Amino acid sequence: MNEFVLAGDLGGTNLRIAAVDRSGRILCRFEASTPRYVDESKIVESAVGLARSIRRKMGSDALAFGFAIPAIMNSAEGKIFTSPNLPELNGADLGRRLSEELGLGVLLENDANAAAVGENWLGAAKGSSSSICITLGTGVGGGIILNGKVLQGPDGTAGEIGHVCVDPAGPPCGCGSNGCLEQFASATAIVRMASELIADFPDSRISSMDEFDASMIFGLGLEGDALCLEVFRRAGEYLGIAAAGLINLLNPEIIAIGGGAANGWELFIGPMRTEIVKRAFQQPAERARIVRASLGADAGIVGAAFLAFEKIGLARASRIR
Amino acid sequence: MNEFVLAGDLGGTNLRIAAVDRSGRILCRFEASTPRYVDESKIVESAVGLARSIRRKMGSDALAFGFAIPAIMNSAEGKIFTSPNLPELNGADLGRRLSEELGLGVLLENDANAAAVGENWLGAAKGSSSSICITLGTGVGGGIILNGKVLQGPDGTAGEIGHVCVDPAGPPCGCGSNGCLEQFASATAIVRMASELIADFPDSRISSMDEFDASMIFGLGLEGDALCLEVFRRAGEYLGIAAAGLINLLNPEIIAIGGGAANGWELFIGPMRTEIVKRAFQQPAERARIVRASLGADAGIVGAAFLAFEKIGLARASRIR
Repeated sequence: MNEFVLAGDLGGTNLRIAAVDRSGRILCRFEASTPRYVDESKIVESAVGLARSIRRKMGSDALAFGFAIPAIMNSAEGKIFTSPNLPELNGADLGRRLSEELGLGVLLENDANAAAVGENWLGAAKGSSSSICITLGTGVGGGIILNGKVLQGPDGTAGEIGHVCVDPAGPPCGCGSNGCLEQFASATAIVRMASELIADFPDSRISSMDEFDASMIFGLGLEGDALCLEVFRRAGEYLGIAAAGLINLLNPEIIAIGGGAANGWELFIGPMRTEIVKRAFQQPAERARIVRASLGADAGIVGAAFLAFEKIGLARASRIR
Repeated sequence: MNEFVLAGDLGGTNLRIAAVDRSGRILCRFEASTPRYVDESKIVESAVGLARSIRRKMGSDALAFGFAIPAIMNSAEGKIFTSPNLPELNGADLGRRLSEELGLGVLLENDANAAAVGENWLGAAKGSSSSICITLGTGVGGGIILNGKVLQGPDGTAGEIGHVCVDPAGPPCGCGSNGCLEQFASATAIVRMASELIADFPDSRISSMDEFDASMIFGLGLEGDALCLEVFRRAGEYLGIAAAGLINLLNPEIIAIGGGAANGWELFIGPMRTEIVKRAFQQPAERARIVRASLGADAGIVGAAFLAFEKIGLARASRIR
């Protein structure tokens, strides 16, 4: 018999649910647009619909359901505190509702934490007992694994690496602070920094463009465009300041960097490493391998699957150490 | 029978060893100047001498020996990597040597970590499963307790809160980085910042002094001296930046602040809290109680005693949760 769990990843745009076996293999998957409504009911409905499609396709019931969602929550109770990007989830008792509808144990986890778990199980941080995952997307997400367990904290809010201040004189952040890592290393920040530098680099190809995104800036950087190189140098510098702090605080074995803006790796990794060498203690700096995340968009699903297996007591057996 | 462990605290100036019972009570203590020599042998000799004095006084053998030392080490193996302030300990197999001499199990721990354990056991962070201790002395030390265990990391270097960069444009630090918290919140930094501000505050009493220390600056601040108030405002501001980062990363229940410069509490806590409110997420910021450490100079000894009891499997029973 094919034992599997359901593993879901809820984003602002899409909702994906997959059947995942104990080795982490994705057996099948279904996807829908994230439905927007005044409360969580349409998301529950859609997730339940996808879960039933999987049951039909697999011909058997899942063992449990792990669900990565863009929110701060109490994972143990399945209760959401807040979801900045899907505010209809604020306060939702999502775990209980899904559990009742599906007749399954449900484990909710923050999406960045789930990605860190996925990378730690089968991705770039595989085999390490302490790893940190930094996701460079529209914002900067983070997840911290210590002694083989994701760090949640009593409020489920731990791991917000994107909102550590790396420059108290830096630009304002949506969180209310300023100079957060997110303001230097997200895809959004890369575009903003490029705009800010146009006056200093009138010869840059960027200067003649009406619109550009992080991947265009990266492409031009690879061609030697000085403005674009400077943007990624700054992103790397601040990533290095943040990583050095994490190394001195937590002495991790691996820091894995994922998300769309991690595509700029070639341009930011050099300046990032320079800051780490300068700012972190030698021994933990040599310990910490800085690597690219390897599971891509599936990291959250894979992590959610691990957490679902863990919830039913089946994860450790399949974990490679 | 009176069951007790030996608990020691090695500083740059003094070596103290106490007999501590399972409730954390210090039954007796002996002290000596820290002997300086080319290698660890004189420190071992002195520690063994104090331990024997305790045995004579107590009339019985200790159960184990916990020793807080200013070094980075592998606690499990009792091997020291480096000790910046007592370089004769670099590479020393101190745990094994003490264990052989005393015929006891020996547990070494970094002094800032031991202080965090002590505060978590019986001090300001008592009863919390996650707490952080920041020690403001000549430097800034730190210890992190997560899920009831001190975070050491694979190299024993975790918890170096004093060497997280809080301002990339800040002054150089002895660690090789610049703008570390230590450069704004240590007693040394308080004196340096006062000196730097003399030109801006010619009317300050500090301007007419040849020499001053952190406690004089604090005393004048209490009297309203504008320079001294500004010094502690800055210290508080950067402590707040660092604490907000810790809150967003680790979601701790308590941050306890100890060490000599914590005497400036009244002058720095306001600006510190202002930065936390501005920079940390609301929920974990409301969770994290910022308090003064309560065990004073005994925190390291109390923590070392806890770790010694833990080593022999007797700690959990006496831990209050």
